[in-house]
Amino acid sequence: MQVPKEIRFGTDGLIPAVVQDAKDGQVLMLGFMNREALEKTLAEGKVCFWSRSRRKLWVKGETSGNSLLVREVYVNCYANSLLIKAEPLGPTCHEGYESCYFRRIDPSGELETAAERIFDPKEAGSK
Amino acid sequence: MQVPKEIRFGTDGLIPAVVQDAKDGQVLMLGFMNREALEKTLAEGKVCFWSRSRRKLWVKGETSGNSLLVREVYVNCYANSLLIKAEPLGPTCHEGYESCYFRRIDPSGELETAAERIFDPKEAGSK
Repeated sequence: MQVPKEIRFGTDGLIPAVVQDAKDGQVLMLGFMNREALEKTLAEGKVCFWSRSRRKLWVKGETSGNSLLVREVYVNCYANSLLIKAEPLGPTCHEGYESCYFRRIDPSGELETAAERIFDPKEAGSK
Repeated sequence: MQVPKEIRFGTDGLIPAVVQDAKDGQVLMLGFMNREALEKTLAEGKVCFWSRSRRKLWVKGETSGNSLLVREVYVNCYANSLLIKAEPLGPTCHEGYESCYFRRIDPSGELETAAERIFDPKEAGSK
């Protein structure tokens, strides 16, 4: 797969990409891609982001093994965001949850945990 | 609901918000919110974005009637993106599709339409 000509990267060269579990529809995470990250994602079939904090390409799962295998890539009407349907090889969140969206805003405006933890990153010795 | 203190808006004052259909899990759209848009979303129960192109608050559906009624708001591990589970009152996309992600990248790198159109915006007289 090649990067379609219609894709519009932002003024910062990035496009937001939402990753959804292809099987159960759970939204797993959101990251940003530059052109190179999207090219790599399409070429290799594993989700690759541009890490804004580390300023480098980041193949999700390269350390943890919890990769995201690309099944389908969707583009929105303005071609300025992506939706990737993927097969996760393990819990996506580094905090040990299937999805990074494991907290919900409760009626008082506090964050409450709304998912079960698969592993404890402290006990697993990773971070 | 109040804006939780943990929420981290970007250097541009914005946070990306993914909207998912609370019933069938379909990812409908992605937009950006500033603090005021998020406050309004939580206070009024209708999704409100910050329009980066028009530089103003934008209550989704204010013109079309196709509002997004907030059911739950989730926050990711870094508290720098949001996932809103919502009830859409009509097709979310201004192009007449349920989801803005109605096109898929095909193996040759072209965009193919992968959803059924609910209405034609030209015939409907809106845009």
